Amino acid sequence: MDVATLSAGLDTIWVVLTAAMILLMEGGFALLEAGFVRQKNAVSIIMKVFVDIAFGALIFYFIGFGLMYGKDAGGLIGTTGFLLNGDLSHIAINISHETYWLFQCAFVIAVISIVSGAVAERIHFRAYILYAIAMTGLIYPVAGHWVWAVGGWLGKLGMIDFAGSAVIHALGGFAALAAAIFIGPRIGKFTPDGKSNIVPPSNLPLASVGAFILWFGWFGFNSGSTLSATNGSIGHIAITTMLSAAAGGATCILFTMLRYKKADPPMVINGSLAGLVGITAGCSFVSDGAAILIGVVCGISMVLATEWLERKGIDDPVGAFAVHGISGSLGTLAVGLFALPEMTKGIGQEYYGLFYGGGWNLLGVQALGLAIVSIWGFAITWIVLLVIKRFVPVRVSRDEELIGLDVGIHGVPAYNQDHDFLDLDQLKARR
Amino acid sequence: MDVATLSAGLDTIWVVLTAAMILLMEGGFALLEAGFVRQKNAVSIIMKVFVDIAFGALIFYFIGFGLMYGKDAGGLIGTTGFLLNGDLSHIAINISHETYWLFQCAFVIAVISIVSGAVAERIHFRAYILYAIAMTGLIYPVAGHWVWAVGGWLGKLGMIDFAGSAVIHALGGFAALAAAIFIGPRIGKFTPDGKSNIVPPSNLPLASVGAFILWFGWFGFNSGSTLSATNGSIGHIAITTMLSAAAGGATCILFTMLRYKKADPPMVINGSLAGLVGITAGCSFVSDGAAILIGVVCGISMVLATEWLERKGIDDPVGAFAVHGISGSLGTLAVGLFALPEMTKGIGQEYYGLFYGGGWNLLGVQALGLAIVSIWGFAITWIVLLVIKRFVPVRVSRDEELIGLDVGIHGVPAYNQDHDFLDLDQLKARR
Amino acid sequence: MDVATLSAGLDTIWVVLTAAMILLMEGGFALLEAGFVRQKNAVSIIMKVFVDIAFGALIFYFIGFGLMYGKDAGGLIGTTGFLLNGDLSHIAINISHETYWLFQCAFVIAVISIVSGAVAERIHFRAYILYAIAMTGLIYPVAGHWVWAVGGWLGKLGMIDFAGSAVIHALGGFAALAAAIFIGPRIGKFTPDGKSNIVPPSNLPLASVGAFILWFGWFGFNSGSTLSATNGSIGHIAITTMLSAAAGGATCILFTMLRYKKADPPMVINGSLAGLVGITAGCSFVSDGAAILIGVVCGISMVLATEWLERKGIDDPVGAFAVHGISGSLGTLAVGLFALPEMTKGIGQEYYGLFYGGGWNLLGVQALGLAIVSIWGFAITWIVLLVIKRFVPVRVSRDEELIGLDVGIHGVPAYNQDHDFLDLDQLKARR
Repeated sequence: MDVATLSAGLDTIWVVLTAAMILLMEGGFALLEAGFVRQKNAVSIIMKVFVDIAFGALIFYFIGFGLMYGKDAGGLIGTTGFLLNGDLSHIAINISHETYWLFQCAFVIAVISIVSGAVAERIHFRAYILYAIAMTGLIYPVAGHWVWAVGGWLGKLGMIDFAGSAVIHALGGFAALAAAIFIGPRIGKFTPDGKSNIVPPSNLPLASVGAFILWFGWFGFNSGSTLSATNGSIGHIAITTMLSAAAGGATCILFTMLRYKKADPPMVINGSLAGLVGITAGCSFVSDGAAILIGVVCGISMVLATEWLERKGIDDPVGAFAVHGISGSLGTLAVGLFALPEMTKGIGQEYYGLFYGGGWNLLGVQALGLAIVSIWGFAITWIVLLVIKRFVPVRVSRDEELIGLDVGIHGVPAYNQDHDFLDLDQLKARR
Repeated sequence: MDVATLSAGLDTIWVVLTAAMILLMEGGFALLEAGFVRQKNAVSIIMKVFVDIAFGALIFYFIGFGLMYGKDAGGLIGTTGFLLNGDLSHIAINISHETYWLFQCAFVIAVISIVSGAVAERIHFRAYILYAIAMTGLIYPVAGHWVWAVGGWLGKLGMIDFAGSAVIHALGGFAALAAAIFIGPRIGKFTPDGKSNIVPPSNLPLASVGAFILWFGWFGFNSGSTLSATNGSIGHIAITTMLSAAAGGATCILFTMLRYKKADPPMVINGSLAGLVGITAGCSFVSDGAAILIGVVCGISMVLATEWLERKGIDDPVGAFAVHGISGSLGTLAVGLFALPEMTKGIGQEYYGLFYGGGWNLLGVQALGLAIVSIWGFAITWIVLLVIKRFVPVRVSRDEELIGLDVGIHGVPAYNQDHDFLDLDQLKARR
Repeated sequence: MDVATLSAGLDTIWVVLTAAMILLMEGGFALLEAGFVRQKNAVSIIMKVFVDIAFGALIFYFIGFGLMYGKDAGGLIGTTGFLLNGDLSHIAINISHETYWLFQCAFVIAVISIVSGAVAERIHFRAYILYAIAMTGLIYPVAGHWVWAVGGWLGKLGMIDFAGSAVIHALGGFAALAAAIFIGPRIGKFTPDGKSNIVPPSNLPLASVGAFILWFGWFGFNSGSTLSATNGSIGHIAITTMLSAAAGGATCILFTMLRYKKADPPMVINGSLAGLVGITAGCSFVSDGAAILIGVVCGISMVLATEWLERKGIDDPVGAFAVHGISGSLGTLAVGLFALPEMTKGIGQEYYGLFYGGGWNLLGVQALGLAIVSIWGFAITWIVLLVIKRFVPVRVSRDEELIGLDVGIHGVPAYNQDHDFLDLDQLKARR
């Protein structure tokens, strides 16, 4: 056994194990979303998560990966690596391309899962499949190429985004916002005079456990992004991830106690996630103290953004934009403020955040990249949905929405308590 | 620190971590099965999973492991290694026997858990304990010896089954089929004129999350079966596992949309699992493209097999045979079709599948081994249940079945929503 | 790549991955506790788990870690390492202090989560936050220093507690007992004539899956406590952990079948956990056979202790004391009986348990340490609650308790099945 073989084996199991942790996050998304939506739509949202992971993996294998990480053309797209074929020699890693693919595949599935929450309870299933194909085959791979691929133009400008506050979360969050606006609010969510009704989460214990599973997976997401077990930043990444998440959760406990006179469970759940999203860009670049501050700011901003969307009449059932769009944006910018040169050495260059004497340079690049990625996610989502609408309905019928997508579209309720045998006609009449 | 110590440590944590992932699959089985059965039997099925893991581990420690991996006698059984004592020097691994035992223990618990689903909602609890002892102490260890142990006769014939499409899933699936037929259908499942009623899954969100946890554990199952972190196939195993599962899920989404005019949630859940089961034998031997094809075929076959069982009046509440028996068989045969010599070099010999010029040899051996293992699983299960029936009832009473096994056998309902305190007599009267 | 770098990387990912597994146990605690309590308090108990992980991590970062693992003063407390600053050179590990902190942070969060179950359904939320701060910032760190830190007085006396049967579980369990007695039983749990009512678990499938997740996390807990992947005990730790848990579960299945004429689901769940708690101290020091015996004894003792608490009128809704306090104590003492010299060599000294010719020495030290840690946990908890009571109410109002803490305190029910929109006033009137 030689050292090189050991090193390759070590990096391989590190990446495979963390990729598996990220893929388990789909179970977390499924629980979180099924818990947050109404009972009559709990299965339908989980079926969308199955679309994410099943179609997402295949499309990314056939198209997305090559477009994202293939040999660069003009800083804009990749051109090799479809079906893992062709020249991928520009990717300098200590693991096989297959192992690398698995990790990246787990990422793309997370992105599309962010959108699934925002369109819950009303999107048409066939339209969702088509959108998922567009996201995993085009929207995310192209934006990801710009920031993360060898030769991508935003990366060359100097944008840094360690594990994807911008590429994953801001992109996914702004795409979610576009989709939520495009499709419109759920029937009855807003009254004609503009007030909003509270749609109760159907199953908060499930939603909470979804958050804990996501938290677990995030250690894979952030620490695993080193792609190497001997990267000296792993411990630091793990601690900043933990502290930011804890700060996000604790902040939302205290902030909602002050603001609403009660610790608000959905806000606490989303507050922890906001902390996790916010630290994703900077987990390996900022100090512990900055991580806590990022968690605090993301937690409060998530609450305020949620309220703002409600006031604006935008219906995002699980808070996808407030969690991923807002915290992803803040986290991307935070790197421009808090990056520490000794931490960024690992990526081959020393970066100085604004607060460490780096001036406005890094912050400017981060803001530009964030704007580009967010606008791209929003705009292409809108266009894709316009195109889809020409072929299939984007929204279910009024009847299907009222009876719920579980019975209306998938022909089976999520929970069956009272009956030994199923009479679907009776269920449909119950509405 | 020398390289040999590092290498042993690396392999040890790889196997311990993947074994823990496989053991977490019991949580996945518990969720999947509790979600698929009726609410009145949700606890009783989980108690069977506890029997699987608790009795399974102990019996495998005392008896099963030695019978399976002990020093070979005549190609038929192992004769050492009971309580991990005696000569185990024939096992050439870079990890301790204790670590190896843990991994194999996780496997045997998975096998018996496959059967638990098929007999759900009606098997007598004491009979199940006795059957679980037979499975983990005799049925699986003996068949496993034939294929996987040093000196096992099917292994010597040239049968290959990387992580157990045959040894785990076909064996478990055919044992499940035997048990389901032996015990008979649930009361009311089939009408006197042979029509079948739909028994609604009590909790599809739980069942779905069970599938995601199983999916996660499968990376441990397949990749961990290398037993070494420096095995060059780990990345390939992970990607074929992912692609086959995705193909199984995507296929069942599309196929049920065509066939039933709706994406059918239980079929999509089981379709992903079918893809995972199917790739288990060949994950390290076949190409990515073959993996996708295996997932597609297993997904469709699972749907058709489920329908076939319903027509035949065989009641398998969670689809254990359709998922594990059918896909396990297909996956075992697929190795005979798609094995690639460059992939099988790692196991010390180059195998050529039928489609790569290997002729009918490998396929024939795979078919023979599959037949032996399946018949063994089916027949010994039948015999064991016949023997058990002489001592304890194999099926609960009509009253217990109608009221549900939770209240009827275990004295507590799975879900309690309306009452602050429990009045069991009242619950029993409710029936 | 040199061997030292590889070795550090290997140990780092081992500790980060096992720490993440332990942190996932919070999801397990949340499920277990939400499943065991009544439906009207299911969210409120999960919010306490969020307090554990969010406040626990921050307080341990600011105060607890330094107090526990900082430079020793008089064998009593640590004095450096607050915010991970200051001299920590006395900690001789192959991983960074940040990685070490993450692992220890996962431990402290587990301790406070033990207490959360015992005070479920009635503690005031603000009082709980304050208590959680005291536990993670003072009670656990100080006791932990005595046993585990370099220079701690109990450790110097010769007390050994591999992964914390005493430091984590007995401490947490006795603190839970104090808190349960201090706060008093739930309204209606005991009738005026001293009989106890059965409070039905609201969701046993969730509770069961919580146990499986805890079981999974325990492999991280025990094996990860080696803090090094090349520690030769990892395989042994994993197998003793598995066997003791299985023995605890199997014992409770058989014991409740004998005693109650039914396999009692909550007892089986807690029996597995009792086996896990009991082996935590000795997992690396005792034989496989002793591990099984520990599981058996802990399982039976847990059942008897649960009955004893009921008879005494002490209300511990999830069995925190019976599981953690009793089994933690038994496990700590078991080391004094079963420690094997060849197993304890790894920690730099050979220990002989009473049954291996070591005489009463080790047993005496274990008993002394256990007594000290348990009394400390009980007494300081009592004092802290007395202090908290001067500032905020420790118990919710009668009205809030009757309506349930979910609606009463957090303003949202855990499960919403019948309504598309939430009318909180109506829910409160429902009581």
